Amino acid sequence: MQSLPNDNFSDRLAAAVRRCKTPVVVGLDPRWQQLPEPLTSGVETGNRPAMAQAYARFCRAIVDVVASLAPAVKPQAAFFEQLGPSGMNALHEVVDYARRHGLLVILDGKRNDIGSTAEAYADGFLGEGSAWQADALTVSPYLGSDSLQPFVEVAVRRGAGLFVLAKTSNPGGGQFQNLVADGRPLYRHVADEVERLAIATSGESGYGAVGAVVGATYPEQLGELRAAMPHAWLLVPGYGSQGATARDVAGAFDAAGLGAVVNNSRGIIFAHARPEYQHFGVARWQDAVSAATRDMTAQLASETRAGKL
Amino acid sequence: MQSLPNDNFSDRLAAAVRRCKTPVVVGLDPRWQQLPEPLTSGVETGNRPAMAQAYARFCRAIVDVVASLAPAVKPQAAFFEQLGPSGMNALHEVVDYARRHGLLVILDGKRNDIGSTAEAYADGFLGEGSAWQADALTVSPYLGSDSLQPFVEVAVRRGAGLFVLAKTSNPGGGQFQNLVADGRPLYRHVADEVERLAIATSGESGYGAVGAVVGATYPEQLGELRAAMPHAWLLVPGYGSQGATARDVAGAFDAAGLGAVVNNSRGIIFAHARPEYQHFGVARWQDAVSAATRDMTAQLASETRAGKL
Repeated sequence: MQSLPNDNFSDRLAAAVRRCKTPVVVGLDPRWQQLPEPLTSGVETGNRPAMAQAYARFCRAIVDVVASLAPAVKPQAAFFEQLGPSGMNALHEVVDYARRHGLLVILDGKRNDIGSTAEAYADGFLGEGSAWQADALTVSPYLGSDSLQPFVEVAVRRGAGLFVLAKTSNPGGGQFQNLVADGRPLYRHVADEVERLAIATSGESGYGAVGAVVGATYPEQLGELRAAMPHAWLLVPGYGSQGATARDVAGAFDAAGLGAVVNNSRGIIFAHARPEYQHFGVARWQDAVSAATRDMTAQLASETRAGKL
Repeated sequence: MQSLPNDNFSDRLAAAVRRCKTPVVVGLDPRWQQLPEPLTSGVETGNRPAMAQAYARFCRAIVDVVASLAPAVKPQAAFFEQLGPSGMNALHEVVDYARRHGLLVILDGKRNDIGSTAEAYADGFLGEGSAWQADALTVSPYLGSDSLQPFVEVAVRRGAGLFVLAKTSNPGGGQFQNLVADGRPLYRHVADEVERLAIATSGESGYGAVGAVVGATYPEQLGELRAAMPHAWLLVPGYGSQGATARDVAGAFDAAGLGAVVNNSRGIIFAHARPEYQHFGVARWQDAVSAATRDMTAQLASETRAGKL
């Protein structure tokens, strides 16, 4: 496993986005029922080690396609954990493979805990010589800023990044996140904390190593949160399968087309099953991944300031 | 791995607490620097597979001691994950060993995500024939009730339980949790959701399969939350090393001494290092675990309604 350069995660992300001329992040969400048939044939459902190997093959094959097309991938820990220790081995293999192919790896674990337990998570996922060595990790804010601090310290030390959940993309995300306290919704209170941490960890790009997760499915709040966190990279889920379009994410970018990366998982990795790409056929599922990634880049370029990259 | 009986988690927990006549939950937080020396000697720090084996040996040895003294153990996922896939193997081994010795296993993972990703976590940790097969899991509420629903469904189907973070025990836990919206703090809004889910999943004991995490370090809020969630089991961390006493948790119990379990991790598993148990010497660290567990049971019995068990 290569070690990280010691510079700021925000600068590394900006450089990768500029190099690929796109803010597209490819979400690696292996779901057994949706894997292209060539990868699952002969594997018995319930044989977790064999399923985990198929997940790793699937994700490596995606990396082969998108390494030249996108700045980052976002493996979803849940699908690997679902397969137990074998799945976690596959996750490690995928993180390593993606990094060796020049992709930044944003591990979507939504972890957090208190004090020294948060240190253990931070060290395990982001630490120098750690078990997974991701470039960035998603974390939950519910436990407060003292729970985020151990992650920030490990991230800064290693040139890694964090994305704190602020406004999530699910329909019920607002149940608690939209509650108004002191005249502002909870997600704005979280945003204030993220902005403080972003300023404290900012690099040459002007952005910090600490960013926020803000769903594309709430375009109005996305613009509000872009303004509230001028130093924070936004990781924007909800594009594609969850219903958000290029126009919905337009408010996420700064004048130079930076400041946000937009994730698409199912819409890219299972593109072979989408009507517009079915002509490739399942055997050419990787071509569908390539076409879907390029098409999303083109859509974002034409509808948002990502076109200035 | 034995399968769970199909009855309600709340009833299984009530039966276990009554059988052991104590609400003590022993937290399994293996920390390398604090492991009794007999377990670490000869293991090179950084050799994660060997460290994970030491963690498993340590936790199994604790299970051997506490299986007859306590209703449940609470492995902290972070410390196992820190060691990578080997650590997750050790976690599986510990969960299995504890369950085979009659202990309920509350896995402390503080997981959550949206939609089908939450389903993957729920299935992986709690599902029938799943990778870890814990009896209960801690989950974060930040993403709202639609994110909790997949966990509830899996838990109910398998007779497993959930503990939703409401008021955490850390000093900064109030930063967001205490924000007041519509006249009530955020933790009360979460508590209302937990109470709804508890009622919807209640068993013969009157309690539900969905409970809440409420820190012992905030005794006033603990009493407030006990009253706000009459159908929810409370998982109470913060006792011992974090500063809370038996008197601080008195408000967590119902009239019969049920309705709450109180976790102690470091104060029990590393008891050999506490002044009051140092006379055992490190070689007899398991006797220190036994004495600390019994002493905590006695303290709770004398200061709280757990004495009525």
